[in-house]
Amino acid sequence: MKDKTIYKYIGKVLIAFSALLILPIIVSIIYKSNILPFAIPLIISLVIGLLLDRIKATNKVIYAKDGFKIVSLSWIIISLISALPFTINGDANYIDSLFEAVSGLTTTGASIITNVEVLEKSILFWRSFMHFLGGMGVLAFVMAIIPLSKDDKSLHLLKAEMPGPNVSKLAPSVKKTLFYLYSIYIGLTTTELILLMIGGLSFFDALLISFGTAGTGGFSLLNTSLATYSVFNKWVVGIFMLLFGVNFNIYFLMIIRDFKSIYKSEELRTYIVIFVFALTIVLLNTYQTFATFNEAILNSFFHVSSLITSTGYSIGDINIYPTSSRVVCLGLMVISACAGSTCGGFKISRLIICVKSIKRDILKVIHPNSVRTIYFENKKVSDDVVKNTCSFLFMYALIIIVIMFIVSFDEFGLEKTINAVFCTFANVGLSFNISNFAEFSNLSKIVLSIGMLLGRLEIYPIVVLFSDLRK
Amino acid sequence: MKDKTIYKYIGKVLIAFSALLILPIIVSIIYKSNILPFAIPLIISLVIGLLLDRIKATNKVIYAKDGFKIVSLSWIIISLISALPFTINGDANYIDSLFEAVSGLTTTGASIITNVEVLEKSILFWRSFMHFLGGMGVLAFVMAIIPLSKDDKSLHLLKAEMPGPNVSKLAPSVKKTLFYLYSIYIGLTTTELILLMIGGLSFFDALLISFGTAGTGGFSLLNTSLATYSVFNKWVVGIFMLLFGVNFNIYFLMIIRDFKSIYKSEELRTYIVIFVFALTIVLLNTYQTFATFNEAILNSFFHVSSLITSTGYSIGDINIYPTSSRVVCLGLMVISACAGSTCGGFKISRLIICVKSIKRDILKVIHPNSVRTIYFENKKVSDDVVKNTCSFLFMYALIIIVIMFIVSFDEFGLEKTINAVFCTFANVGLSFNISNFAEFSNLSKIVLSIGMLLGRLEIYPIVVLFSDLRK
Repeated sequence: MKDKTIYKYIGKVLIAFSALLILPIIVSIIYKSNILPFAIPLIISLVIGLLLDRIKATNKVIYAKDGFKIVSLSWIIISLISALPFTINGDANYIDSLFEAVSGLTTTGASIITNVEVLEKSILFWRSFMHFLGGMGVLAFVMAIIPLSKDDKSLHLLKAEMPGPNVSKLAPSVKKTLFYLYSIYIGLTTTELILLMIGGLSFFDALLISFGTAGTGGFSLLNTSLATYSVFNKWVVGIFMLLFGVNFNIYFLMIIRDFKSIYKSEELRTYIVIFVFALTIVLLNTYQTFATFNEAILNSFFHVSSLITSTGYSIGDINIYPTSSRVVCLGLMVISACAGSTCGGFKISRLIICVKSIKRDILKVIHPNSVRTIYFENKKVSDDVVKNTCSFLFMYALIIIVIMFIVSFDEFGLEKTINAVFCTFANVGLSFNISNFAEFSNLSKIVLSIGMLLGRLEIYPIVVLFSDLRK
Repeated sequence: MKDKTIYKYIGKVLIAFSALLILPIIVSIIYKSNILPFAIPLIISLVIGLLLDRIKATNKVIYAKDGFKIVSLSWIIISLISALPFTINGDANYIDSLFEAVSGLTTTGASIITNVEVLEKSILFWRSFMHFLGGMGVLAFVMAIIPLSKDDKSLHLLKAEMPGPNVSKLAPSVKKTLFYLYSIYIGLTTTELILLMIGGLSFFDALLISFGTAGTGGFSLLNTSLATYSVFNKWVVGIFMLLFGVNFNIYFLMIIRDFKSIYKSEELRTYIVIFVFALTIVLLNTYQTFATFNEAILNSFFHVSSLITSTGYSIGDINIYPTSSRVVCLGLMVISACAGSTCGGFKISRLIICVKSIKRDILKVIHPNSVRTIYFENKKVSDDVVKNTCSFLFMYALIIIVIMFIVSFDEFGLEKTINAVFCTFANVGLSFNISNFAEFSNLSKIVLSIGMLLGRLEIYPIVVLFSDLRK
């Protein structure tokens, strides 16, 4: 029975996850708050993990299907456990807690908590730490710590969890690849942490904001998000959000000093072009509402950066944006940043592949006998990848329509409904006309939570799980 | 020079088109109004046509590329000429007239005329006649009248103009196929005409409404559309709109009494399921706003029928619809009805192919070694068709985003902008929050007109034309 192997893996994941719950317990002890909200989930996670780990698995080969199942089941179980601290601490009922946990782990950053300033430090830490954990992927985290299986067999897990159509292995082994990715991730996070402390934030605040930036999450410590922070810190976060939207391969290329490949990267170039284009539109649209041009450019830069990377921090009211800027921002949310980053959304690499595929189809009409191959980042793109990218687009559109339909019964009007769906499904967390998700119905909260998971895991793992369960 | 052949063809099309302009001139004479608004375009069309027809063309083979070019250029030139009557008659400036003409020919039915009740009968006839002409396709009309080339060579023209991913030839020859299609088209139109006259309409009114229904257009004779018509006539139009949304192949199968194939048609079944689903939602959402249940069901049936077939007639205020019904209606507008009908939009057959393609991709993950072929209507769908359908979806989405972005500068808010774009690009003509397009800027009117053409010709012909021109 192959499924036994799957459950055994999930057991290992849960054991590792329970170890991570020690961190918020330490925070609870430091700030003298109740440790039960984290101790209970720790025990639950550990017990289930140990029970599943006792399963005797014979089959050791992991197929793509199994990878998808392990990843999606792990994310679902870890979401269910991660919601417990909020419920046990009395901050929210379980459905709201689940929304908050899924929003945290999927690095969305949409919240059902109306007043975050009354939350305990340990809970605030947990919210931001979920972003940091979910950004790189729960399993990637676990795989970096403990060896789940022989090296070559865990690639399917990495592929199922990592965003983008083509996850590159930076090094010959999965473990080495993970080591590089984590070095980059932690290196960037630490740099931001130090800069924010220089800018005047306490270690605790700087750490949490850095967690949220790194995972492109967006949970903040204040009800006004980052509006009251210093100009220096706003720029730091604005720039670091943008940096976390870059494909981590680029940083790897920087480390190995391959600047030529960086210069040639189509995805990076497109990312920059889209960013500058959106920045120009938003700036032109809004600069007259600000006292100084510096303020206007900071504001536009910060919010465009926050939306394109699906982070969701804000430093002011984006509801002042006129329709044209809103359309641009919705476009940013849907497309999002580079594959291989911590961002949500459709990803720029997919956009490029789709555009090239169309170009080929049109040229095929004009020159019927020509044979054309699609190249992306100087590599031949196989027809399977092109087809999968197109199918992905269709599923992406279909899921948006279905979620929108269910949420529309809350009767918040079309614009707000669209914003709610894009903001969660693309894992953004910031949107027009919505300050908080507490007002949505329980059905909508559950559906939007499923949407966040589908968005973060890029649809396939969850769909494969449920397609195979039905039989 | 292959292009010479293209221009010669367009010349023939224009000569045939100028002959069609005799009809509104007859109407002008009957109703004693000015014939110049139609005589001038007739002369222009005839002169350009004769000049182009003098070109000596050597190459007689029409490739797909040439088919696309002939169709898109013909549509653009005929739109430019069809706008003249409105301008010459003083009903609108030229940009508005062009919007009205494109809206007529593409069977959209969105109007810039705020008071249609003051229009002359000849102009009203022209608006509705454009629907009838555009519904089946301008070239199809011409090809049915005069032989453009040897039979087998005109299939590319038919394919470029007819909606849907797979245009079936009903008969071995193109001419015979066109004969069947026109018999069905005119047969249904005549039946509706007679029923509407039984229902109390004058011949003129019944004819124009039948033209609008047949082409799934939507231009009406009164400012309140069909709201003041009798209940009987509302049902007649409601049902006939639905009938014109069916693939004409089905009627052909009826004629040859192949009821088994009709029963098996996946597209027809899906069309019915979508219709009943949308009807149920809208009815549940709105029935309490009507005095009687009969009125509620007539209203819901009529509007769902009008929106799914992209016709755009209305019999009441659809702005009373709550958000959930609006989302459903937007979905109907985008998807639209069957391929091979006169409707706009994405088409149900494409939807089915996309869904099947995704299903295959997911099964491929679960059973990696399985080889699966997609079947649609009991025929094998080639990989090329699947790929093209996916590319079409992407272009469809991309064009919506681009048009939305440009129109958003009119600052009408997100909801109204989305409605304006869907309503024109999907050739619907009816939408929420918009009673008239006169209020939009000239830039938006031009862009929305291009959108209507792109929507009606299903993107490729126009894109191929401009891709090849650039070189």
